[in-house]
Amino acid sequence: MNKHVPQSEFKTPEVTTGPLPSSRKTYAAGELYPDIRVPVREIDLHSSANEPPVPVYDPSGPYTDPAVAIDVEKGLARTRAAWVRARGGVEDYDGRDVKPEDNGGAAGKHLARAFPVKNRPLRGLAGKPVTQLEFARAGIVTREMEYVAIRENLGRKKMLENAEETIAQGMSFGADIPPFITPEFVRDEVARGRAIIPANINHAELEPMIIGRNFLVKINANIGNSAVASSVEEEVDKMVWAIRWGADTVMDLSTGRNIHNTREWIIRNAPVPIGTVPIYQALEKVGGVAEDLSWEVYRDTLIEQAEQGVDYFTIHAGVRLPFIHLTAKRVTGIVSRGGSIMAKWCLAHHKESFLYTHFEEICELMRTYDVSFSLGDGLRPGSIADANDAAQFAELETLGELTKVAWRHGCQVMIEGPGHVPMHKIKANMDKQLAACGEAPFYTLGPLTTDIAPGYDHITSGIGAAMIGWFGTAMLCYVTPKEHLGLPDRDDVKVGVVTYKLAAHAADLAKGHPAAQIRDDALSRARFEFRWEDQFNLSLDPETARDFHDQTLPKEAHKLAHFCSMCGPKFCSMKITQDVRDYAEGLSDDEKKDLERLSAEGMREMSAKYREMGSEIYLEADAAKKANEGL
Amino acid sequence: MNKHVPQSEFKTPEVTTGPLPSSRKTYAAGELYPDIRVPVREIDLHSSANEPPVPVYDPSGPYTDPAVAIDVEKGLARTRAAWVRARGGVEDYDGRDVKPEDNGGAAGKHLARAFPVKNRPLRGLAGKPVTQLEFARAGIVTREMEYVAIRENLGRKKMLENAEETIAQGMSFGADIPPFITPEFVRDEVARGRAIIPANINHAELEPMIIGRNFLVKINANIGNSAVASSVEEEVDKMVWAIRWGADTVMDLSTGRNIHNTREWIIRNAPVPIGTVPIYQALEKVGGVAEDLSWEVYRDTLIEQAEQGVDYFTIHAGVRLPFIHLTAKRVTGIVSRGGSIMAKWCLAHHKESFLYTHFEEICELMRTYDVSFSLGDGLRPGSIADANDAAQFAELETLGELTKVAWRHGCQVMIEGPGHVPMHKIKANMDKQLAACGEAPFYTLGPLTTDIAPGYDHITSGIGAAMIGWFGTAMLCYVTPKEHLGLPDRDDVKVGVVTYKLAAHAADLAKGHPAAQIRDDALSRARFEFRWEDQFNLSLDPETARDFHDQTLPKEAHKLAHFCSMCGPKFCSMKITQDVRDYAEGLSDDEKKDLERLSAEGMREMSAKYREMGSEIYLEADAAKKANEGL
Repeated sequence: MNKHVPQSEFKTPEVTTGPLPSSRKTYAAGELYPDIRVPVREIDLHSSANEPPVPVYDPSGPYTDPAVAIDVEKGLARTRAAWVRARGGVEDYDGRDVKPEDNGGAAGKHLARAFPVKNRPLRGLAGKPVTQLEFARAGIVTREMEYVAIRENLGRKKMLENAEETIAQGMSFGADIPPFITPEFVRDEVARGRAIIPANINHAELEPMIIGRNFLVKINANIGNSAVASSVEEEVDKMVWAIRWGADTVMDLSTGRNIHNTREWIIRNAPVPIGTVPIYQALEKVGGVAEDLSWEVYRDTLIEQAEQGVDYFTIHAGVRLPFIHLTAKRVTGIVSRGGSIMAKWCLAHHKESFLYTHFEEICELMRTYDVSFSLGDGLRPGSIADANDAAQFAELETLGELTKVAWRHGCQVMIEGPGHVPMHKIKANMDKQLAACGEAPFYTLGPLTTDIAPGYDHITSGIGAAMIGWFGTAMLCYVTPKEHLGLPDRDDVKVGVVTYKLAAHAADLAKGHPAAQIRDDALSRARFEFRWEDQFNLSLDPETARDFHDQTLPKEAHKLAHFCSMCGPKFCSMKITQDVRDYAEGLSDDEKKDLERLSAEGMREMSAKYREMGSEIYLEADAAKKANEGL
Repeated sequence: MNKHVPQSEFKTPEVTTGPLPSSRKTYAAGELYPDIRVPVREIDLHSSANEPPVPVYDPSGPYTDPAVAIDVEKGLARTRAAWVRARGGVEDYDGRDVKPEDNGGAAGKHLARAFPVKNRPLRGLAGKPVTQLEFARAGIVTREMEYVAIRENLGRKKMLENAEETIAQGMSFGADIPPFITPEFVRDEVARGRAIIPANINHAELEPMIIGRNFLVKINANIGNSAVASSVEEEVDKMVWAIRWGADTVMDLSTGRNIHNTREWIIRNAPVPIGTVPIYQALEKVGGVAEDLSWEVYRDTLIEQAEQGVDYFTIHAGVRLPFIHLTAKRVTGIVSRGGSIMAKWCLAHHKESFLYTHFEEICELMRTYDVSFSLGDGLRPGSIADANDAAQFAELETLGELTKVAWRHGCQVMIEGPGHVPMHKIKANMDKQLAACGEAPFYTLGPLTTDIAPGYDHITSGIGAAMIGWFGTAMLCYVTPKEHLGLPDRDDVKVGVVTYKLAAHAADLAKGHPAAQIRDDALSRARFEFRWEDQFNLSLDPETARDFHDQTLPKEAHKLAHFCSMCGPKFCSMKITQDVRDYAEGLSDDEKKDLERLSAEGMREMSAKYREMGSEIYLEADAAKKANEGL
């Protein structure tokens, strides 16, 4: 059961603040909207580098800005409220009262303290654009669109002269990344449904971000308490911790009691989009009995969460009654929690899923708040054996149909993907998703490329994530080392986030993203020039890099040393190379020509040497083979 | 400097022994050679599983066999000595005396104790087959060949009826994995040069293994002291530790003092092939000054190490004088230690590398002991920016030429590969290697798919390793979390090995290897059936899996519980699925037909719904786009 936290003992969540090493937060203003302030983290290098700071994408929010006073009890500044009101089409209203069942009936000392500030919710009006998709279709560039355009451009200006070349060298599998991201490009991608900006009109604390194949690959971190572990404080801390290390969105997958209050604390303090799986809370409201779920309870939960400001909902509307028996012969059946709840409901009532039959009402509701769909893959494979089977692909086809229905209602949509898939079956998932879902962004869990390494599933899945990110997945849902084994703690969250950041970055590099390689090159130069501090500071996890270095060479003087513990002072390849380079750069043109001649001559000689006797080898081998055919 | 270990204080290396959890070591006899005993680890499952034990490949040697008394002071049993003598073509002789410079001039308290037992070395005679390649070409199946055939077949008999199907489902990029490995298949692959069995005739403690594209993907772990850290004891312990977790070969990359004695302790206790980079020791012999290296010192080092029983030598003979200036514009120059030493030598003398000019003498020498070549990629890229450049590929072409020369001399050859390569440039490396090197096995370090995550380079490289293993690399050289930062300790070695085991296994699965999926399926069934103990025992690292589980649910009773900490008792997708499955399996044929009808109807309805208005959406979007073109 949840930890008992009497209201009197509830502590204000303690979160980690302050900049990362050698980093400054700067803000860029818009051109269309000069009032927007788009954050960039700039990493300053040692003066000996003689290089400008390296800009990196920064989802960490005001927590890493020493100029902002953080008060978790008040939440972050609600800057976006004015943006939403300014463009009209919304009204505020009283909103739904919080009911005891919203917190699983927790009362007295079991009830987590409510977030101290209450905001009146907004809702969209009929007949006027509310969602980013509707604005995009109407040809309107929103503040959110300009914001993400600037955000995505990190360092691109610097690389712009080589951008076409970088893109051309990559292999993008049909993605269409431009040299420079304009607000109009963003609008067009959103209008086509090829990208989404998850941004509930009630999440006023949000720093907008975009999810789409033609943008930087994003990552999501899951947090959330469960019936057996963790508290509100821990979850708020985990959210701030996850974005500190690079999570672009956070899903609150809480179950058990206090779901409502936990979520309110998270959203009011979250600068990133928050996603949920509303069926989890709906199930709590009916005492954990799947058969007792109803459209009414579910609908009420959607409104509750939409008013709070959840930016995207995972909805497993593709788990249809006729597909369920397709999973019967699977090695691991239905492993998605949402999928299995709906499957159980369908079978108990022998009825089509209410998520499917009420899908248009769900769309209307989500449009009203601009909650994006994350169409859930409730029938995703839970093992290598079940990958790419009939059940999985029947559901994916259905998600494609539903995408188009949601688009018709003006809703933004992304599609969730597997799961457990061996490497050779990954590409088929991406291709099928693109074809079936009209290029709506794909959002995949992993996939895990083998089942045999519990404890290391951040890695089995990091492999699959990097690959599918390269093939076109827009957002990767992280997997922590605790996957299949337990709830991730703070350390697991960090390892999961950093692993997925590196996978997403590897995908950006492979796609030929023109801003991606800036950081690799800066770090490699630092490494080559023995600027240890710069090497640490440019890395995804400066603390761990420094700590690992210091385990062998703890002294401060060693950070200036032109050697490292792998080789010792006399014997360092980097040092020798530096000497080689100085020498080689002194070669005259004539000397270079001599070298070319030498190269060609060597090759000719070596070839002659093996040609002399080469044919004999094969004769010999052939004869041996023949001699053995009788064995 | 090396730790000072006075001889009197030298401790017998303490190594980890005993079986892994729920595992038994069994041995299979040969048919051609009934005296060989090929080890298999069998993992016993809980009686409720009603499944046979799961056989897994086991490179851990006698250390995990409780029936074998381990005495590190004596070394392992020298079983293979009789095999080598039995087939003739060899003689024993006095061998080279150990010289002070072999241990870097260490004396007195600085000199590590010599291994207590001294064996007379063997050498091959001219005109008779000595190497596995020569035997293979002569049509002779050696004990080593039958041994590896049996070893590779793990569990294949069980899958044999589905083997063709499994292979067909995989994607092997031209690899040609048979349903069942015969000794004759092994002989043929070795004869073609497409696989090697690294097995120095003086490494009598060896349990043979094979490296080739049509066999299970192997992994190598690097160990070795350096001038600044670690001792003989630690390195012997690391070797035993590395093979316990699955390393198929171990490279001793020691530098500094005591190289000879350290290596002797390692080889005498190693059941896996040991590789070295002889230039490291040669450099020590000339006081660390690359310019002072000579063919004579190098040759003497080769003999020294060959007599000790080193199974493969990394030889950077492709670092030619005319290629060196091609690295001058690189971001990270020459990062291979061996490569940079040779580059420095070449430039200092303005001469072609003595490894290249004396290559045929090297071949003769290595043939005499059946030391396999691992042709080193001294010009491999050390950063994303330098991947697949002219220097790298010029060297690779040269390695292809040298491969053929070595083959002519009867030597076994594999080729080392990069390094740092972004995902989209990995395949080109494999394709080029296959084409240039006549399908000689590829042995790659990683590759690392991004430079920005020091501290996580086991993962940045695990991604590349899994991919290149799938594409055809035969052995993956591990990278530990300490890469670029420090010397790996015991924990790092384990994390590196397990990460690479999972990458190699992911590659086997993707290639369609017919024995690979047995373990995944067994583990997934255990997971689905809440057999927690079986899930731990079947995993690559049972200790970590158990530990992670116990962090949230420590009680023994929880290992029998049909739930886990992620969801809690009422809310477990696996539990619900079990119910769903029971229900679904009760469906009659008529009921199933009804479901199909329902499925088709739903699809038709949904399609109709969006077709109704579908075209309008696109018109709207199009209109919006046009309206915006002026912006």
